Amino acid sequence: MFNKKQDSDITGQIVADLKKPIKQFAKAKTSSSKNLRIIPLGGLQEIGRNMTVFEYENDILLVDMGLQFPDEDMPGVDYIIPDTTYLKGKEHKIRGVVITHGHYDHIGAIPHIMPMIGNPPLYCSEMTRGIVAKRQEDAQDRTPLNIHSVKKGDRIRLGVFEVEFFHVSHTIPGSFGLNIKTPVGNIVHTGDFKFDHSPVIDQPSDIATIARIGSEGVLALMSDSTDSQTEGYSISEGTIGKTLGDIIEHAPGRVIVATFAALVSRVQTVIENAERMGRRVAVEGYSMKTNVEIAQKLGYLRVKKGTIIPINKVNEYPDNKVVIICTGAQGESNAALMRIVNNEHRFVKIKKGDIAIFSSSVIPGNERTVQGVKDTLYHRGAKVIHYKMMDVHAGGHARQEDLKMMMNLIKPKYLIPVHGTYFMLKIHGELGMEVGIPSENILIGENGVAFEFDNQQRGFVGTEKTPTNYIMVDGLGVGDVGEVVLRDRQLLAKDGMFTIVVIIDSKTKKIVGTPQITSRGFIFVKENFDLVNATKRIVEKVVKEKTTADTPINWDYVKNNIRESVGSFLYTKTERRPMVLPVVIEV
Amino acid sequence: MFNKKQDSDITGQIVADLKKPIKQFAKAKTSSSKNLRIIPLGGLQEIGRNMTVFEYENDILLVDMGLQFPDEDMPGVDYIIPDTTYLKGKEHKIRGVVITHGHYDHIGAIPHIMPMIGNPPLYCSEMTRGIVAKRQEDAQDRTPLNIHSVKKGDRIRLGVFEVEFFHVSHTIPGSFGLNIKTPVGNIVHTGDFKFDHSPVIDQPSDIATIARIGSEGVLALMSDSTDSQTEGYSISEGTIGKTLGDIIEHAPGRVIVATFAALVSRVQTVIENAERMGRRVAVEGYSMKTNVEIAQKLGYLRVKKGTIIPINKVNEYPDNKVVIICTGAQGESNAALMRIVNNEHRFVKIKKGDIAIFSSSVIPGNERTVQGVKDTLYHRGAKVIHYKMMDVHAGGHARQEDLKMMMNLIKPKYLIPVHGTYFMLKIHGELGMEVGIPSENILIGENGVAFEFDNQQRGFVGTEKTPTNYIMVDGLGVGDVGEVVLRDRQLLAKDGMFTIVVIIDSKTKKIVGTPQITSRGFIFVKENFDLVNATKRIVEKVVKEKTTADTPINWDYVKNNIRESVGSFLYTKTERRPMVLPVVIEV
Repeated sequence: MFNKKQDSDITGQIVADLKKPIKQFAKAKTSSSKNLRIIPLGGLQEIGRNMTVFEYENDILLVDMGLQFPDEDMPGVDYIIPDTTYLKGKEHKIRGVVITHGHYDHIGAIPHIMPMIGNPPLYCSEMTRGIVAKRQEDAQDRTPLNIHSVKKGDRIRLGVFEVEFFHVSHTIPGSFGLNIKTPVGNIVHTGDFKFDHSPVIDQPSDIATIARIGSEGVLALMSDSTDSQTEGYSISEGTIGKTLGDIIEHAPGRVIVATFAALVSRVQTVIENAERMGRRVAVEGYSMKTNVEIAQKLGYLRVKKGTIIPINKVNEYPDNKVVIICTGAQGESNAALMRIVNNEHRFVKIKKGDIAIFSSSVIPGNERTVQGVKDTLYHRGAKVIHYKMMDVHAGGHARQEDLKMMMNLIKPKYLIPVHGTYFMLKIHGELGMEVGIPSENILIGENGVAFEFDNQQRGFVGTEKTPTNYIMVDGLGVGDVGEVVLRDRQLLAKDGMFTIVVIIDSKTKKIVGTPQITSRGFIFVKENFDLVNATKRIVEKVVKEKTTADTPINWDYVKNNIRESVGSFLYTKTERRPMVLPVVIEV
Repeated sequence: MFNKKQDSDITGQIVADLKKPIKQFAKAKTSSSKNLRIIPLGGLQEIGRNMTVFEYENDILLVDMGLQFPDEDMPGVDYIIPDTTYLKGKEHKIRGVVITHGHYDHIGAIPHIMPMIGNPPLYCSEMTRGIVAKRQEDAQDRTPLNIHSVKKGDRIRLGVFEVEFFHVSHTIPGSFGLNIKTPVGNIVHTGDFKFDHSPVIDQPSDIATIARIGSEGVLALMSDSTDSQTEGYSISEGTIGKTLGDIIEHAPGRVIVATFAALVSRVQTVIENAERMGRRVAVEGYSMKTNVEIAQKLGYLRVKKGTIIPINKVNEYPDNKVVIICTGAQGESNAALMRIVNNEHRFVKIKKGDIAIFSSSVIPGNERTVQGVKDTLYHRGAKVIHYKMMDVHAGGHARQEDLKMMMNLIKPKYLIPVHGTYFMLKIHGELGMEVGIPSENILIGENGVAFEFDNQQRGFVGTEKTPTNYIMVDGLGVGDVGEVVLRDRQLLAKDGMFTIVVIIDSKTKKIVGTPQITSRGFIFVKENFDLVNATKRIVEKVVKEKTTADTPINWDYVKNNIRESVGSFLYTKTERRPMVLPVVIEV
């Protein structure tokens, strides 16, 4: 998976002296025609598919390449990736891709986009690399990636850019913030971060380094806005651990903890508490097992020998000596928890005395499903615990006080809120004003529009917009589900469809046989003969009126007339508007 | 709307002496063959479509007749009503319908169910009556209802049952709890309630009367479980008013408050605060205007002359003298707020300086839409306030401490938690144990299964189940959208449909012309000629192999073969499973 061959344009990885800021770009600052362009291709005014282009003359650096999960009005779509139209024809300028951390909203588009942009070298932590490599194995196009691991403190040169990686705490180990030195000034990108002074895995965010970077002068801070709506400080994972520990301590039987595979820190929290009570831990769910294995192999996960047991051994231990941690806290239909709750799991069935803990926020849109899972758990005799505290505090993203602290440490000239809806970006901007950043230096942007910085260190939001369409991935298709297909799916979902096949004799222009009607999702046709027969008569009438023997049939005209007449007839009778699809065939 | 003609079976409305409990049922308590049956037709293990049957020998009393809003997996469905199969053939036994309050989950099924059960007399408060009558005007079947208004303290006799109405506070005026005297004992039904000691409209729940009812001996308490998951006491509307007042006081321009039409108490809160600051109030949104008019006409709403102005006059007042209260806090596509936000409103356009307040909880499933509305408001220059406090406390339902207080006042022998998912009912049951109700006297039931009480005052949950299917209302159709139609809609939404029309010559068994393909919601066919052509060849091959000249065609066999071959071919090529619909026609 690790391809040593490097593009000759690439300067490669250099580890520089932390104390010595790089000076050789000073010349560029005087050249008035050269602007640094930072173009977000995703992640602005939306949650997910984070990807940013840094461009200066002949050099391009990419940061992150994530996916976004679809809205409820996008049925059938697996996920959405950024639109990389902007990079077409500029592949030769791409010096490298830097990934901040291993969550899907930062890495999920790699298998799709890398082949399109010439597979440039990719830089990330060991943890991220493990997850990216695993995902690549499962992808359709398994072209090996050119991945290079970096450590916190490392600096790499990519064309005119120098990237310094600094450690931030998040819910997955190996998360980086970036200090990007450019010809016009230093840009700091936080990645996803929180300040956690007692994390259970990994170290606290590296405040000393962040302060040192700030002291070197930062032109712009691009900072995570995901939790900018929440007042106060983020809650430490250590605090959450205490609550979890209390529950496990007092549980009479098995404890089943449902969470996200992405929340590796929560797995550590559960393991620590289980060990303290002498319980074994079984990990269930494909993606969670993968993440745990990678974190364990890299030494991130602190786990005693024998603590983790395979799921098929859980029944060999007393119930009060077992903790099961699994995916499915969102009620995902194919996750481990769902199989367990629905009695479809080979080794684990819910029984009286089990305690199920939902240990992560419910993503908007999943609440009803999660409520259904909890109901079923109760039905089967389990107790369900969904503490508000754990619920609310699972995020892993900086809150208002953390965001202000980051700004105070970095002391940027410009603030660019990233990762969030417009509302979140604006609130983040208001926090910037609170800490004294002038309002004209707070740049609220949008996908596809460049933040530009000239060599006088003047920043502004550009006016041109590069395409940032939703590129939808559905099965094997990437980008072939567009607005038309989606709108059709929405219409089909609402009132179903109604196909009418009419065969017309080419000479007499009379209908051969009777029109054939096939309907789905509209009404139960077998119980509505009258409606169907009345519709057939309408079709016969339209064909009779709109065709003439011996003149060629105007197909579109006849079809449109059938569509309109049948559509309005069905609406009058039912107040529903199924999609009416006439098929007219001449024989 | 108020039909004076009464069914001769109906004893009618009697107002009895509150001090004199009715004694004439004492005889029935000794008859061992007589059980009181309480059959929930909706509202148990679900939220909404509340309806309960009380049956004793030849008498039936119905409590509430509500609708439920559909889940996200029921596309196109307007709402769901209870299944009244159980009442078929028992219409002559129905002595009356009692409605606790005017929210749609308690009244919404009236226009559909009343004509089916012989339009029995209906008893409710003046406020409820106003809303029920208005809804009946808008219904398809406008048969006048036989509505009788009752006041708190009233007692009515309906066959063997006597119903005493007592006041509870909720978010709409005219909300009742019921003390139902039956031959086997008194059953108390709380309706929807909270204890609010400083409500802004209406009175606090009538604790003295509730205590008096408790002192008379209560066999079973049926109590509202909607907010049983939340610890502590409900928050008073008066407290919410203070926060709203602060915002309105400091607002530099217009204040736009979005809430539910059903939250009449919130409208009062806004009006009071607006009046204090010398602001006018415009009410916008059909259902909200209706409710405000009814509440105002009945004297529930305390509003000074001139405070309420028509929406087309808002621009005649300075911005800081205007409050607009409207529907659309859930991002409902046709609500007033959406028209305002999308610049489609005739008189109100969002401008800089506007403050928009979201003054109600976001219903699960609507979060993304609401976030989108907030983003647009920000884009147009408004500020958005969605205080957690108001958000969380908007419910109007009793919390854990309120529920315990109700149990302590009523001191029932049995507790029957109602209105809520299984999880909520169970938690409510656990609260019952905390206040000392024996666990065997806590009856967790399900729709369609009777709670039975014999004349020894022994209660139990029955074993037989009457049908409680979802009766879905879609346009003009009631109950004609079933499982099959819904499943088809879900499938169509996911991967679309693919219709193949094949015309076969009845003699030669050869295809006439080429197969015709019509597809929607699958892929954009016009850009996928290769796939379409390959599919046509597969169809031709199947027809060739599965038919023989001179023998009749086995239609189903050919169609199934086309469906399977095409379905698996399309899956291999796209990993999608559109609904494949072959139409085979012989000419």
